[in-house]
Amino acid sequence: MGIKKPVIAVDIMGGDFGPPVVLPGALAAARSSNIDLLLVGRKEAIELELKQHDCSGVNFEIVHAAEVALMNEQPSDILRRKKDASIQICCRLVKEAKADGFVSAGHSGASVACGMFIIGRVPGVERPALATIIPTEKNPAILLDVGANVDCKAHHLFQFGLMAHPFAQDLLDISSPRIGLLSIGEEEGKGNNLVKESYDLFKLAKNINFVGNVEGRDLFTGDVDVIVSDGFVGNVALKLSEGLAGSLARVLKREIFSSTVTKLGAWLSKSAFKRFSRIVDYAEYGGAPLLGLQNIAIVCHGKSNIKAITNATIMAANYVRKGTNQRLTEAISANEELSRYSKAIKH
Amino acid sequence: MGIKKPVIAVDIMGGDFGPPVVLPGALAAARSSNIDLLLVGRKEAIELELKQHDCSGVNFEIVHAAEVALMNEQPSDILRRKKDASIQICCRLVKEAKADGFVSAGHSGASVACGMFIIGRVPGVERPALATIIPTEKNPAILLDVGANVDCKAHHLFQFGLMAHPFAQDLLDISSPRIGLLSIGEEEGKGNNLVKESYDLFKLAKNINFVGNVEGRDLFTGDVDVIVSDGFVGNVALKLSEGLAGSLARVLKREIFSSTVTKLGAWLSKSAFKRFSRIVDYAEYGGAPLLGLQNIAIVCHGKSNIKAITNATIMAANYVRKGTNQRLTEAISANEELSRYSKAIKH
Repeated sequence: MGIKKPVIAVDIMGGDFGPPVVLPGALAAARSSNIDLLLVGRKEAIELELKQHDCSGVNFEIVHAAEVALMNEQPSDILRRKKDASIQICCRLVKEAKADGFVSAGHSGASVACGMFIIGRVPGVERPALATIIPTEKNPAILLDVGANVDCKAHHLFQFGLMAHPFAQDLLDISSPRIGLLSIGEEEGKGNNLVKESYDLFKLAKNINFVGNVEGRDLFTGDVDVIVSDGFVGNVALKLSEGLAGSLARVLKREIFSSTVTKLGAWLSKSAFKRFSRIVDYAEYGGAPLLGLQNIAIVCHGKSNIKAITNATIMAANYVRKGTNQRLTEAISANEELSRYSKAIKH
Repeated sequence: MGIKKPVIAVDIMGGDFGPPVVLPGALAAARSSNIDLLLVGRKEAIELELKQHDCSGVNFEIVHAAEVALMNEQPSDILRRKKDASIQICCRLVKEAKADGFVSAGHSGASVACGMFIIGRVPGVERPALATIIPTEKNPAILLDVGANVDCKAHHLFQFGLMAHPFAQDLLDISSPRIGLLSIGEEEGKGNNLVKESYDLFKLAKNINFVGNVEGRDLFTGDVDVIVSDGFVGNVALKLSEGLAGSLARVLKREIFSSTVTKLGAWLSKSAFKRFSRIVDYAEYGGAPLLGLQNIAIVCHGKSNIKAITNATIMAANYVRKGTNQRLTEAISANEELSRYSKAIKH
């Protein structure tokens, strides 16, 4: 494990920009972090793009995929009917142990469906979850689920927390990440029925550091490392954050450019603005780990730039090297009785 | 109606700061907008505070309330056991038609409980909802429910939209406010079960302008006037927005003050920052209307300053003058069959 280089399958056709962005992103990751690549997509498109880049020192192989998952297709249709789609082939390469994990900026619903049914879930895991890494005032934090599961039960939320535990350990390099439940009040007993039932499970959980409920305003302070919610609330929270940061930036720009003096002020303070935008830049973290599969899977934003793909590929390799998924399996297994009990009783 | 001055009962004991903030806030509203006041709270505290202010030209009456609702008390306990709490007396004054509406910055759960059981609901309304007014890049928008109802059914969300319609008309002075449903994708069929069922009701609604699903990122663009969600999601969204705006401001400040040049830049552009913070300032709108009661009720943030109380009191009087609640009653009544049908079928 320590000697073998991680092999990452990269869906070169995925994302809004395809090969011209994904390929150089993957190559940069391979060179900087000693990763072997399987480049999955249309052979001709990949070969054509490869000519534009210096590939010396990178160990890669092209794996032809005749089809591409389109954004307007249903995940289930892609899974059933598009056997040669690049995302399906990425998952098969992982399933056949030819790759240790995959990265895709394509159709995220297809990544979830193909990951779940081709690679398969960790024993005991009922619902894989998308975990996004958000910037905070201090260290980054993990918010999950952000859209893989819109209607959840308490034991799903409980497993989301268990699964995020080892990923937060490795992301932040800490032994005991603080896990909070997104609610509308800090005290036990605050929240909707789903949150209250989940709280009861977390209180009894083994080997994790549950810190109780957290509120929307705690997401960005950095005082909690993992924030657990259902996929509907998590997705609303994520998109709201992106939207609000964008709106605030536009309003500030409009106000600043309304006079010469404020414009001069903005010019002088632009290095501060630059550092500031780096903090709110999603590309810093690259992608969202899809937790609960037998192997590592990173789902990237469709709008990912080269840097985002590079960071997502490095992230995938790091989780492979650190054996994060093994610890996820242990966390699920240590708490399996509790999950099964909660699933069995009718709420 | 056009001639009679609105009478607003103000809970002088409410809020983190009590009489020294609430009293001058109410007095300023009464003077600027021709409102009669009922000042509800401990007589001695109000009389003492009144000595600090110029009350000339303001028509007011003190209504003694021996008790105060405390933040750590359950709303149901306040309702049942604290008959002399200022919030209960405010509601009784409205019920007995001695006041046209009330304003309170106290325990918001107590305001909802006392409003619902003392003042009573508009016929057909099942759940009153807290509607907060949020700043956007263009005009303000209404987000509801933000916490009165954490577990909702489709017909509740449907009624939230119907109730917000006349309030948005009067807030924005437009005839046909755009009503959107907060979800995780714009297309019909996206969202959790609750949102999908609510969508079906809104599609059939009479006399409102339903524009479909909106995402978290659409909240602050100003392209929709009313955003409907359950009280859990709405409360998370509201607190997350407040928290993120605060975190971004702190990070920007830290970056700017890290060098003399950027500090000078910030000083030059400070008028832009000032205009910017006015946009994200909740005090601009004062309070959250509690929709669905027989009369106007405005619930303010516990941290409300004088300006917020003033604006909330003016808002209450404006809604009384414009007969907003009559149009709410009509909107509910025009769609009653649909609400009743949805309630009757089992989802």
